[in-house]
This record gives sequence, structure tokens and C-alpha cells, in this order.
Amino acid sequence: MKDDSCIFCKIANGEIPSNTIYEDGEFRVILDLGPASKGHALILPKSHYKDICEADQAVAEKLFPLAAKLGGAMKQSLGASGFNVVQNNGTSAGQTVFHLHVHVIPRYDGGPQMVAWNPQEANNDELKATAKVIRDTLG
Amino acid sequence: MKDDSCIFCKIANGEIPSNTIYEDGEFRVILDLGPASKGHALILPKSHYKDICEADQAVAEKLFPLAAKLGGAMKQSLGASGFNVVQNNGTSAGQTVFHLHVHVIPRYDGGPQMVAWNPQEANNDELKATAKVIRDTLG
Repeated sequence: MKDDSCIFCKIANGEIPSNTIYEDGEFRVILDLGPASKGHALILPKSHYKDICEADQAVAEKLFPLAAKLGGAMKQSLGASGFNVVQNNGTSAGQTVFHLHVHVIPRYDGGPQMVAWNPQEANNDELKATAKVIRDTLG
Repeated sequence: MKDDSCIFCKIANGEIPSNTIYEDGEFRVILDLGPASKGHALILPKSHYKDICEADQAVAEKLFPLAAKLGGAMKQSLGASGFNVVQNNGTSAGQTVFHLHVHVIPRYDGGPQMVAWNPQEANNDELKATAKVIRDTLG
């Protein structure tokens, strides 16, 4: 369940030191070394999964409740007024370390927002066709 | 559990039409009308929660497993090679509709990535101090 070549496995399991803010049997939460904002945290499962598609259901289920708990604590302790939860899968999505991780990024009044995308014009016929293709695959 | 003034409540509960790609008793998943990419979807709980901090545990637990299922279907049906999961809480985090929703954004080889932030230089003493403050709040 651990990949010896994976740096996040080593951090999650305490073999490499980190600024840990939370730990339980399944997860370690650390501060990001290249933060988007003060308090930017990463939730790392202790077991190795490449991405969310590979994760055990029991692990995947705990990620949003834990992110909510962390975000609440960031508001209380750091004076953040909001937070982003971001999780990237695949190189094309900006994933750079191939060990499942969830970013929890506190945001502050007057601070920079996350401008993650510019909404595109959506053609309704295209949307309908795209929706059908995904729906059919989901079955 | 429903807020009559909330547009996402109306969409989630079928009172306003949408390009639905998935529906069960608790969630409706629709295509975003201002997509970041082809297939950009929103997971909407049918019950009204302002954000992830307000959500029932049972709802929060289902969000990442559902996002993984959707992302897998986007790869299979649309030829996406990755996907982002993004969830914003609070105005300072870019939340504009105050009904909990999770973005699932397919990404394509050669297409634009999500450039969500520029990493800041992290001072280790500051990181240590920030970690302690959050850790103490989490208890």
C-alpha cells in the first residue's frame, strides 16, 4: 500500500519531516511548501493511490468531511473568511505528484481569489450532446 | 431542507431544466452553462447547504466518490485525460452561488490547464507557526 519511490508516501508516513497540522490512522495533513495563501494545506492519505479514481471508497468518503473540518479550523485560527478545496487528477489537470492529495486553501477578505478558469460560451446543442454522451457512459 | 429563493435548489430538484448527466435521491449533476472545458459538470445536492461546512456528513461523504465516478466517465466518453475537482466556500474563495456545489472539470491533452495559483515563497518559521495555530485549533 506504500510506494517506496513516492515522496508523499514518505511524508504521509513520517519518514520525511513536514509541518503537520492533523494526523490520524489514515491521513496526514501538512502545510504546502509553495502555498497559495497562508495556511494552504494538503491532505495526504497514508496509503498510496495515484489519484481519486484509484482510492478506496472508504478513503474517498473521508476527504470532504476532513476538508470541511480543516477549513473551519482555518477560519477560526487564521481569520480566513473562506476556503477552496482542489484536487487534481492527471498531468493535463495540473497534477505533479502522483499520490492522491487534496488542497485546502484558506482565503482572506481582500486577498487574491482563485481564478481557476474563464467561463466559455456554451452552445446549448453542444451541451445537450455532451450531456448525453456522459449520461450514456454512466449508464 | 430547500430554500425557495435558491436557483440551485430549483435546478437540483428539477423545477428549472438543466443538462443533467446523473441523478439519484440526493444529488443531481448538471453541465455548467459557463464551462471551463467541454463536459464541465456541477454536483448539486438536492438539499440546501450553503457550503461544505454546513453539509450533513452523509452528503459530504458521497461527494468525492461521485466526483471520481464522473471523472472516470468523462475520460471514457469524452477523451479527457484528467480532471479537476474544485469546491469553493465563501465570497473570498470565489463562491458565487451559495448552495454547496462541486465542480468536476475534464482536462484534455494539449488543452489549457487550471492555473489556480502561483506558489509563494514559504518561510519555514512562518510555516511552523501557522501549523501550530491550526493544530491547536483542531485540538
